[in-house]
Amino acid sequence: MGSTKIVGMGSYIPSIVKTNDAFRSSIFYSADGVEIDNPDGIIQEKFKEITGIEERRYASNDLNASDLGFEAALKAIAASNIDPETLDHIIVAHNFGDVTYGTIQTDILPSLAARIKAKLQIVNPNCIAYDLLFGCPGWVQGVIHADAFFKAGLGSRALIIGTETLSRVLDHHDRDSMIFSDGAGACILEYRPGDHEGILATACATHSAAEWKFLHLGKSNQPEATESIRFIKMNGRKVYEYAMQQVPISMKQCWDKTGVPIEKLSKIIIHQANEKMDEGIVNRFYRLYKQPPPKDVMPMSIHKLGNSSVATVPTLLDLILTNKLEGHTINKGDYILIASVGAGMHINAIAYKF
Amino acid sequence: MGSTKIVGMGSYIPSIVKTNDAFRSSIFYSADGVEIDNPDGIIQEKFKEITGIEERRYASNDLNASDLGFEAALKAIAASNIDPETLDHIIVAHNFGDVTYGTIQTDILPSLAARIKAKLQIVNPNCIAYDLLFGCPGWVQGVIHADAFFKAGLGSRALIIGTETLSRVLDHHDRDSMIFSDGAGACILEYRPGDHEGILATACATHSAAEWKFLHLGKSNQPEATESIRFIKMNGRKVYEYAMQQVPISMKQCWDKTGVPIEKLSKIIIHQANEKMDEGIVNRFYRLYKQPPPKDVMPMSIHKLGNSSVATVPTLLDLILTNKLEGHTINKGDYILIASVGAGMHINAIAYKF
Repeated sequence: MGSTKIVGMGSYIPSIVKTNDAFRSSIFYSADGVEIDNPDGIIQEKFKEITGIEERRYASNDLNASDLGFEAALKAIAASNIDPETLDHIIVAHNFGDVTYGTIQTDILPSLAARIKAKLQIVNPNCIAYDLLFGCPGWVQGVIHADAFFKAGLGSRALIIGTETLSRVLDHHDRDSMIFSDGAGACILEYRPGDHEGILATACATHSAAEWKFLHLGKSNQPEATESIRFIKMNGRKVYEYAMQQVPISMKQCWDKTGVPIEKLSKIIIHQANEKMDEGIVNRFYRLYKQPPPKDVMPMSIHKLGNSSVATVPTLLDLILTNKLEGHTINKGDYILIASVGAGMHINAIAYKF
Repeated sequence: MGSTKIVGMGSYIPSIVKTNDAFRSSIFYSADGVEIDNPDGIIQEKFKEITGIEERRYASNDLNASDLGFEAALKAIAASNIDPETLDHIIVAHNFGDVTYGTIQTDILPSLAARIKAKLQIVNPNCIAYDLLFGCPGWVQGVIHADAFFKAGLGSRALIIGTETLSRVLDHHDRDSMIFSDGAGACILEYRPGDHEGILATACATHSAAEWKFLHLGKSNQPEATESIRFIKMNGRKVYEYAMQQVPISMKQCWDKTGVPIEKLSKIIIHQANEKMDEGIVNRFYRLYKQPPPKDVMPMSIHKLGNSSVATVPTLLDLILTNKLEGHTINKGDYILIASVGAGMHINAIAYKF
């Protein structure tokens, strides 16, 4: 056996900066249609305290999710110095496809992977392109797919993209609209026979009993809004409780498969969902090993970038690897643990040695 | 090594029968907005001659794609006599998600796989559920995914579903609306170590240079229609030329990997896209072996069911295996070749021994 390694990464950070202050004129309603008072921007203050988000990025009106994904892919290809014609797979994770600005339709015909392959001008028909829907953990799951394909003998080089334009599916009358943002991240993976670095272990879980509706498409909170236009909706409390309970378990399952002592783990790259929740998950994960989390184990990009769903993990990893996240580096030989959670509900984790 | 076998199948054939005659009052326009005359239903007559379609099925208004997929899954589970809690994967292929009757939004949050897992009341978190977007060949590609996961050591039992409600995304002013239909099909796959039947070989291709737009979302042919509401659109001539040229090549690549003489192949289960096109593909495939196609090698369900995208292949196979397709049977020891083609453009094939 060999192992699967990241040989290059890239991300696209959209150009439009939207601050918390920009939401002070918004009229928010609760899920049951009651208007929420906002004296002196108390909503925005509390929001920042819990989520850590100060501002977020939106794609410019002329760009769709496939465009963002293409930009991230270009950078990953350049960083890895490969010929894109040698790719065996292009896997694109998202949750809403292309939603052209000013419309409400998700466009996934053809798949975003086919569109991005076209934009990359790859002609090799043996480069198989498909989209994967797995909630926010979709990009991480794409990496797990590629790793499995390599082990099964289906190719040895893949491009995995996570891209999302959540700004196009926001209910502007829902406080949760402040959480979500746009972005894209990508990596090139290669299978190296005889190698023992790269992906050491993976873990996944799908909880869809009561959990399937924790994130869903639903009508605006504005009481007179039509039922027939729907937006991203989150039962924040349920998501929080679920993530706090289940994510540390999957992370531990993954890490324990490596056989490496927990003290060797140097960074946890966690889906940028909510700072308080992410801190809680990491604390609980270390509690399972009966120790406190090390200082600086959890780099965050949420303060400036918000929650861009499938894009948070590859974007954060790319920022660190290119020395663009102050105070955080990853060096040769470092062990990291990637973890994500989202709509479905789904969880996954990857233990990785650089 | 072992091999991956189908241990049970199921399909859901929607209840609403829509005949060709029902389209005689439709006002059709060409892609450039010119009204097409229809003296004495000549459009419907020509349509039947080329595509073979006499009637098609639409889902009742209260059902969405995930409901159809659930019904097919229930039957596949019953046919295979497994405990659904023992499934390692649920893979759902589609192209438009759930489109509630009377709305235009694709709903893929959460994924259809998560919804179907919820409806099946499966609580096992190790049953990983995701959606796969790969055009009409999506169900076949889901089977290829599961086979790869098994070989990579990720589980040994999977539920693969193809489900689609194309009736919800039709432009009623486009003649191509007569082609498309609704349906769902499913199978249970198992990995059997040491076995040498089941899946013998697979092949895939993605052509996305000029081809990516052969099937896409576009505005109605009705000249005054808005640009912001979009429907399934097909460049039929381009699809036809592409499929005739490329599908036989992928089918041969797949079959030749088995090392089995072509004379042993007893059925070709091909995506029910268009009868003339499917006949052409099969003829060309046999021409690559310098022989004519055997009588009855190509069972068809398109006459009564139309083109239900990802659902055609599993539905057709289920109909034959349950002796519901007159004149066609598959017996123990028979070799079949599955082939599909669709939006992306994508092609795939599976050589299978029963």
